[in-house]
Amino acid sequence: MILLSGGSGKRLWPLSNDVYSKQFIRLFRREDGVYESMMMRAYRGIREAGDAQITVATGAGQVSAIRSQLGDGINICTEPCRRDTFPAIALAAAQIKRRGAGDGDMVISCPVDAYVEEDYYRALHALGRLAQDSPAQLTLMGVQPTEPSEKYGYILPKSRDEISAVASFHEKPSPEDAAAYIRRGALWNSGVFAFRLGYVLEKARALLGSDDYDALLAAYANLPQISFDYAVSEKEKSICVVRFSGTWKDIGTWNSLADVLHAQSIGPTQLDTNCQNVSVINQLDIPVLGMGLKDTVICVAPDGILVSDKESSVRLKTQAEILSSESRYAERSWGTYQVLAADRNGVTRRIIMPAEKRMRYHSHAMRDECWVITSGVGEVLFDGKRRLVGPGDMIRLPRGVKHRLAAKEDLTLIEVQTGDYFGADDRQFFSEEDAAE
Amino acid sequence: MILLSGGSGKRLWPLSNDVYSKQFIRLFRREDGVYESMMMRAYRGIREAGDAQITVATGAGQVSAIRSQLGDGINICTEPCRRDTFPAIALAAAQIKRRGAGDGDMVISCPVDAYVEEDYYRALHALGRLAQDSPAQLTLMGVQPTEPSEKYGYILPKSRDEISAVASFHEKPSPEDAAAYIRRGALWNSGVFAFRLGYVLEKARALLGSDDYDALLAAYANLPQISFDYAVSEKEKSICVVRFSGTWKDIGTWNSLADVLHAQSIGPTQLDTNCQNVSVINQLDIPVLGMGLKDTVICVAPDGILVSDKESSVRLKTQAEILSSESRYAERSWGTYQVLAADRNGVTRRIIMPAEKRMRYHSHAMRDECWVITSGVGEVLFDGKRRLVGPGDMIRLPRGVKHRLAAKEDLTLIEVQTGDYFGADDRQFFSEEDAAE
Repeated sequence: MILLSGGSGKRLWPLSNDVYSKQFIRLFRREDGVYESMMMRAYRGIREAGDAQITVATGAGQVSAIRSQLGDGINICTEPCRRDTFPAIALAAAQIKRRGAGDGDMVISCPVDAYVEEDYYRALHALGRLAQDSPAQLTLMGVQPTEPSEKYGYILPKSRDEISAVASFHEKPSPEDAAAYIRRGALWNSGVFAFRLGYVLEKARALLGSDDYDALLAAYANLPQISFDYAVSEKEKSICVVRFSGTWKDIGTWNSLADVLHAQSIGPTQLDTNCQNVSVINQLDIPVLGMGLKDTVICVAPDGILVSDKESSVRLKTQAEILSSESRYAERSWGTYQVLAADRNGVTRRIIMPAEKRMRYHSHAMRDECWVITSGVGEVLFDGKRRLVGPGDMIRLPRGVKHRLAAKEDLTLIEVQTGDYFGADDRQFFSEEDAAE
Repeated sequence: MILLSGGSGKRLWPLSNDVYSKQFIRLFRREDGVYESMMMRAYRGIREAGDAQITVATGAGQVSAIRSQLGDGINICTEPCRRDTFPAIALAAAQIKRRGAGDGDMVISCPVDAYVEEDYYRALHALGRLAQDSPAQLTLMGVQPTEPSEKYGYILPKSRDEISAVASFHEKPSPEDAAAYIRRGALWNSGVFAFRLGYVLEKARALLGSDDYDALLAAYANLPQISFDYAVSEKEKSICVVRFSGTWKDIGTWNSLADVLHAQSIGPTQLDTNCQNVSVINQLDIPVLGMGLKDTVICVAPDGILVSDKESSVRLKTQAEILSSESRYAERSWGTYQVLAADRNGVTRRIIMPAEKRMRYHSHAMRDECWVITSGVGEVLFDGKRRLVGPGDMIRLPRGVKHRLAAKEDLTLIEVQTGDYFGADDRQFFSEEDAAE
C-alpha cells in the first residue's frame, strides 16, 4: 500500500502551512482521548483492517513529521522535489520492487488528505482483493456522491454493479453537468488506484524512461510534472471502478473541516448561549471566550489566530498567503517544538521529546543556547561528555560546542537561543562515534 | 489634585482583570507612537495643562503598576483595603495635609477611568480657579450629556450658566426621565469635585471620627463603605456645578472602548475587505486574520482571547468571571512580565526591565530559577556577589539563594522557574546592605 502524503498550503491556516500539511494536524479524537492526525488515522486504520505493507510517498520536508507521528520503523519513499502523483507513485513502486516485491504483487495507492472512517480502510483491503480477481489492469475506488459538487473528478461507470468497467472521466464539471452524471450513476474519483506492481513499472519505463529506483531518483527533478489520472487512468482501456458509499470528505477548507470534528470546540474554550454554529480549535494554553457569534470558525495556533465567517473561510488561501510564512510549531523526528517568543535578539522554544527519541549530534556557529529541563529525564552529550539531566537542570551550550539531547523518559524543556542568527540552516552535524573517541 | 484610581474587574477581559484595572491598559497612541494608558494620559494631561501637585489614591494592589507607569517620584496614597470614594478622598486629604498643605488650599478629586481629551485637563484647572472664586463649599464638574443614558448620575443645575448652583441629583434614571432632565439642562455627574482641603477634613472628622492620616489609616478597615456623592455632595446645600461640554466617555465595555480607539486594529492584524465594523486589539506577537466578520470585537492578550459580537460584549463580566482569574501579564515597580508557558512543572516568563529599574533582593524556598539575558545590560546581585550580565549570559538561581537584577540599560530576559510551587507568596525579601557586609 502506498500512502501519498502530498500537498501543503494555507487553506487551513494557522494549522497548516507550507511545511506542515493538513494530514499532520492532530484533530481527531480516538476513543482513548488521544488526538490523531489523518496520517495517523490512515496508518492505524489500514493496519487494523488487514495485513498490509505500507510505504509513505512524500517530499523531504515531511519526513520528520511522518517519523514523529508513525515511528521510525515506517517505510518512506522520499521525493527529492514534488512532481505530482505519477512520478511519486512510480518512484514508490520502484522502491517496493527494490525491496523484493514481485511484478505480480497487488499495490494500492491512496492519498491521505480526505476525511474517512473505519469502513473506508476495510474498503481499501476489499479493493485489493477485487482487483486481484479482476481481469482489468487498473481498478479505481469511486465514492458515491452526496452532492453535485464541482470540486471533484467524476467517474462514469458502465453499470451500477459494485465493480464495473469505466465508461468515461469528467474533471470538475459544472453543478448541472455533475447532477446529470450522478443521475447516470457517476462516482467521485477518490484518487485510490489498485494495480499490479509490474503494471506501473511498465508505465514508468514508457513515460519516465526507467523503472529503476536509483535512476528515477537521480532524474527526478527532470521528470514531467504529471498526475496519475492524466498519465495513466484516463488513457487505460482495461479499467474498472469499485463503488464505495461510506464517509469520504475533502476537508480542504475550514468550513468542511468543522463539519467532521467530534466537538464544537477543541482546547480551552467557552461559548455563551447566544453562539450559533461556532467551531473553535484552540492550541494555545490561554482560554478563548466567544460571545454572540454566528456561523464562525475560530482557530488559535502557535502561528496565528483566524476568526472567520464560515462561508468566507473558503477564501482563506489568498489572505493567508499575505501573512508571514514562518512557522512557530514543528514536528521533528526527535519531537515537537513551539516558539514561545522570538525577536531579533533571541528565540525561546518549548521542546517536547517522547521517551527514546534523540536529536542528532550538532553545533551552531552563530548562536548560544540554553536548555532548562522542566520535566522528565534525559541524557546530554556535550563536547564528548555524557550527563544525565532532570527537572531544574540547566545546560549552557555556547556556539561551536557539539551537543545533543536524548530522552530517557518523556522530556520537556525550555530552550533559549541568543546570538545573531537563528535560522535552521545554522547547524553542523557530527557522528556520535566521534564523540566517543 | 487627587487622582482616584479605583475599580477592577473583568468588563474589559482579557485586558483587564482583578489586579489590572482598565486605567492601566496602554491603548492610546500618543503623537510620537508611544502607547499610553488612561492613567498615563491623565497624569501627563493635567501637568501639561497647568501647575498641580498630584496624589494618586489607590489600593495596595495597584501601587506597582502606578510606579511602573508614572515613575517612582509619584505621590501615592495607599488604601489598606477598598472603602469607596469618601474614605479614599478623606485619607488622601489627610495625607496632603500631613505633607504641609493648608486648610484653605484648593483640592480637586478626579477619577481616571473615563476617556477624555486635552480640553478636559484644561477644564480641571479652570474648575479649580472657579471654585476658588466661588462662595460655594463644593464645586462639581457636570458633563453635557450626548444621550439620555441610564448608566449615569444626573445633576440638575438651577441655571444654564457656565457655573450654577445645584438644584437636585438624580442617580441612574430611566431613559424617559433622563431625557426630561436633559431638556431641563441636566448634566452627567463626572465624579469630579473641587473643595478646600479643610472642608473635606471637617467632613472626615464628622463622618469618620478623625482627620488624622495615621488614625484614618489604622482604622481604615472599619470605616464605612460610602461614596463621596452619598456622604457629602447630595447633602451639601452650598454646592454648584461647572458645565463641561467636551469629550467624556465611560469605557466600561468593549463596545464603548472600541469607539475611542484611534484605529480599527492595534497589533499585528489583517482584515479582509468583507469585514465591517470590526475592532481588533492584539497584544501577542502572532498575527490575527479576520474574514467576513461584522460588528465584532477581537481582543488577544496574554490572559486569553475574546471574540464577541459588539452588542454582546456588554454582558462580558458574567462570562469572564467563569474563566480563570490567574493573570499572565503584570506590571511591577521593576518592570513587566508575560507568562509564555506554565504547567505544574515549570513557568517560563519574558521579563522586560527599563534602564535604572531594579528588583528587591529576595529568595525563593520552593523553586529554582534560571535567567537568560536576551538584550541589554544588567547587574546581578547573587548571594552577596555582584556581576554584570549581557546578551547570552545565563544565571542559575537555586532555591534559597538570595538574588536580584538591576537594569543598567533596558533589559530583556527569559526566566524559567522549575520546582514544586510558583506562587507569588514564595518570596523572602532582604536588604542589599546585608549583602555588602
